Amino acid sequence: MDCLGCRIANGIEAGVQIVYENEKIACILDIAPFNEGHLLILPKKHVLDVEELDDETASAVMKASQKLSTALKSLFRPDGITICQNGGKFNDLHHCHMHLIPRYERDGFTWSEPLHAHGAEKRLRETKDKLTGWLAHS
Amino acid sequence: MDCLGCRIANGIEAGVQIVYENEKIACILDIAPFNEGHLLILPKKHVLDVEELDDETASAVMKASQKLSTALKSLFRPDGITICQNGGKFNDLHHCHMHLIPRYERDGFTWSEPLHAHGAEKRLRETKDKLTGWLAHS
Repeated sequence: MDCLGCRIANGIEAGVQIVYENEKIACILDIAPFNEGHLLILPKKHVLDVEELDDETASAVMKASQKLSTALKSLFRPDGITICQNGGKFNDLHHCHMHLIPRYERDGFTWSEPLHAHGAEKRLRETKDKLTGWLAHS
Repeated sequence: MDCLGCRIANGIEAGVQIVYENEKIACILDIAPFNEGHLLILPKKHVLDVEELDDETASAVMKASQKLSTALKSLFRPDGITICQNGGKFNDLHHCHMHLIPRYERDGFTWSEPLHAHGAEKRLRETKDKLTGWLAHS
């Protein structure tokens, strides 16, 4: 297994704290946590991005997100949980991984939306037409 | 419907660009897009956080994330897609909504992980014990 994410998800990489796993996914502690309890959910089968997940694995990722969110809330009493997957070039592990990050007010986590001011209505309508057009022919 | 998210998801709020919907979810354009094609997936039934979604709706959110990610990649050729749900106090709509954000290198989107340096092994092990202990009794 050349992929670090595959080795982590399948329990081959040393020093990884797996907190939950099943046939499809492993849930580990992020080694560089933003806050205590910061988790990653990784599919055991290699994929880069969410849309490549088969139905069973996609469902397992979602169910694990729900189960672990409940655990994190009960244990760490965060003000909220941010669930996030950075895809494509922004996936530094090159293996799909969903972050679950317990969040607290004034914890310094930056969420930089929006870069642009509110979209002009015409521009949004054009974007909608592009997307609905694509979906109608997909 | 007092909740803006419920009105948006159910097509009652004026001026919303719905690009895709089914019985369980609606997918709309974010009115303040980070980049063109920035989408929100909202459940039609009111919930605040991901773990409150029933199984069918959770599955519908995941399937829509996959379908729309494919559409965004085909149409806008991003360097990656960030999928994100800010929960609890960080949910400014007070209604569960999953962001799908087409991303480009140097687009200014800030992802501030990690706040802390790599976690000390002992500290990570303690966190693991808390979580596995909780899960064993849940």
